Amino acid sequence: MDKKVIGIDLGGTTVKFAILTQSGEIQQKWSIPTNILDEGTHIVPEIIESINHHLSLFTMKAEDFVGIGMGTPGSVDRQKGTVIGAYNLNWKTTQWVKDEIEKGTGIPFFIDNDANVAALGEQWKGAGENAPDVVFVTLGTGVGGGIIMNGQLLHGVAGAAGEIGHITVDPDGFMCTCGKKGCLETVSSATGIVRVARKMAEEYAGSSELKTWLDDGQSITSKDVFTSAQNGDHFANLVVDKVCYFLGLAAGNIGNTLNPSSIVLGGGVSAAGEFLRSRVEEHFLNFTFPQVGESTKIKLAELGNDAGVIGAASLAISK
Amino acid sequence: MDKKVIGIDLGGTTVKFAILTQSGEIQQKWSIPTNILDEGTHIVPEIIESINHHLSLFTMKAEDFVGIGMGTPGSVDRQKGTVIGAYNLNWKTTQWVKDEIEKGTGIPFFIDNDANVAALGEQWKGAGENAPDVVFVTLGTGVGGGIIMNGQLLHGVAGAAGEIGHITVDPDGFMCTCGKKGCLETVSSATGIVRVARKMAEEYAGSSELKTWLDDGQSITSKDVFTSAQNGDHFANLVVDKVCYFLGLAAGNIGNTLNPSSIVLGGGVSAAGEFLRSRVEEHFLNFTFPQVGESTKIKLAELGNDAGVIGAASLAISK
Repeated sequence: MDKKVIGIDLGGTTVKFAILTQSGEIQQKWSIPTNILDEGTHIVPEIIESINHHLSLFTMKAEDFVGIGMGTPGSVDRQKGTVIGAYNLNWKTTQWVKDEIEKGTGIPFFIDNDANVAALGEQWKGAGENAPDVVFVTLGTGVGGGIIMNGQLLHGVAGAAGEIGHITVDPDGFMCTCGKKGCLETVSSATGIVRVARKMAEEYAGSSELKTWLDDGQSITSKDVFTSAQNGDHFANLVVDKVCYFLGLAAGNIGNTLNPSSIVLGGGVSAAGEFLRSRVEEHFLNFTFPQVGESTKIKLAELGNDAGVIGAASLAISK
Repeated sequence: MDKKVIGIDLGGTTVKFAILTQSGEIQQKWSIPTNILDEGTHIVPEIIESINHHLSLFTMKAEDFVGIGMGTPGSVDRQKGTVIGAYNLNWKTTQWVKDEIEKGTGIPFFIDNDANVAALGEQWKGAGENAPDVVFVTLGTGVGGGIIMNGQLLHGVAGAAGEIGHITVDPDGFMCTCGKKGCLETVSSATGIVRVARKMAEEYAGSSELKTWLDDGQSITSKDVFTSAQNGDHFANLVVDKVCYFLGLAAGNIGNTLNPSSIVLGGGVSAAGEFLRSRVEEHFLNFTFPQVGESTKIKLAELGNDAGVIGAASLAISK
C-alpha cells in the first residue's frame, strides 16, 4: 500500500482532519471542536488523541504515513515546529506543537500558518492547477494571503511575506488595526466592505434599499451588499465597484511584481463568485503591464473548506 | 586550480566582461564597444572573438571554466538561450545566443535579462549580503527590477516578474509608455523625476532656482533636482519628497507582499545616495505592516557597474 498523509486545519472553532493519498485525494475526513479552555492546553493532546483514535478505527499504523502537515493561526517557527501568538486559540506563549505531536503519534510533523497552507491547497489541487507560480488571497473577516513561486511558499525574512491584506491601496484611506492607513483589508474584508458602504452612503443622494438599511442603522453584512448589487441596487453596485477597484489595484501590483499564472480569490467574500471575479479582473487589467495582463489570470478558489487540510497535507509530501 | 567563471554584461553601448572565481572575486575585467550595425549580427561573433582572444592572452583554456553567464536587454528564453526584441541592440528577430557562444568557445552558457542579472549581483556580493530574499530596484532611464526569494530569481509565468517600474503608484497619474497610468517609472526614473518637477513647478508660488530654470525652458536633469534639493532649494525638496513618497509606497507594498531582508536601490538616480535612501525609507515605514517595517531594510546598491558581470557569472555557478 502506498503511504498516506494526514492534513490538519487548526481553526478557532474546529480542528479539521483528513487522510489523503500522496497525490492529494481525500480518503477520510473528520473534525473535532477546538477546546480553547485553560490557555489552549487541551488542543494538542486532543489532536493527538483524535488521530490515534481514528487510526485505530481505520486499522492503520504510524508506519502507513509519510507525515502529518498542519496549518495554524499565529506566528509559526517552521524549523522548531512551534506556534506563538495565536489569540483565537488562547495560545499566548510558545507551543511546542511538533515535538508533542511527533511524540504522541510517532509520525513526522510539519507546520505552517493557515493562510500559507490554504494557498498551497489551492495551488496544488484547486484553481492554481499545480502551476509553480500562484498567489492566493483570502477575503474573510480579515484579508490574508499566501504566495507560491517556483513551486515554493515564500515566507520572507521574518515570515511576513504574503501580508496582502496590508498592501496600501488608499494612502489617505481608513485606519487599519495594524496601525497604518488604507490597507486592502480595510476596504475588502467582510467588515471592510460594510465600512465602504457606510462611508459611501453618506454621500449618495439617490434612492437605494441598501442605503435605507444603513441610514436606519440596521446592521448589514458584505453578503447583503453583494445581494443588493446583484438585484440591481445602483448604490450597492457603486460599493461593489469601489471594493473591486481596490482589489484590482492590489492584484494588479501583485501581478506586476510577481507575474504568477493565477491570483486566486478565496474566503467567505469570494462566495459572491463570478460577479466579484469579473469586476476585479476588469480593474486588474487597467492596473497591469500588458504582458502581465495577458498571462496572469484572476480566478475563484475551488476547494472551499478543504483547501486547509489539502494544503497542510502537502507540507509533509516531497513533491 | 579551481575553475573560474566568465560574466558578461551586454549593453547598448559596451559589452563588459569579467573573469571571476566561483566565490565571486573579479580577477580580470575588460570591455568592447557594442557593434549594433547590420541588425546587431556582429555582436555575438565579437563576444566570442573577445573571449577567445583574452583566454589566449591569459593562457587559459575552455576547460578552466565552469561556464559563461550573460545579462542582456530584451526578452530571454533561458532554456533555449535565445533573445528577441532587444531594440537597443537592433535585435528584432530571435538570436540563438547560447548555441553560438557555446559552439564558439566550448564553454557552457547561461543567460537572463539584465535587470535580473544585476539583482543577482547585488544579492550575492553587494548590498544584499547573500541573503536568500532580496529585491533590487534600478532607477535609471527607466525603472526595472529583479526579485530573489528563497535564493532563486523569480521569473513568473511569462517572464514578467520584477516589472517594478510598472507598479501603479498613482492611479490618476501620468501616462506610461506601457499604456497604463501612474506607473512608478513615470515618477521615479531620471526622466520621471524631471516630469514631476515640471508638473509641480506649475503650481509652486515661492522663489526657487530650480523653478526658474524650468520656467525659463531650460533642460534639467534628475541630478539637478537632487543637487538643488541638497543645496536647500525648497521647491526641489518638495519634488524629491514627492518622488520618494512614490518610491516608498511601491517599496512598502513590495515589502508587505514579499518581506525580503532588503530592497536595494540602484541605477543612476541612486547616485543621490543617503539623501535619497533615507527619504524613501521614511515613506516606506509609513506604508508597511509593522513586522515588515522592522525586518525589511531599504539599502543603496554597492557594486555600481560591476553588478552586471558579477550577477551574470552567478548564473553559471551552482551555489
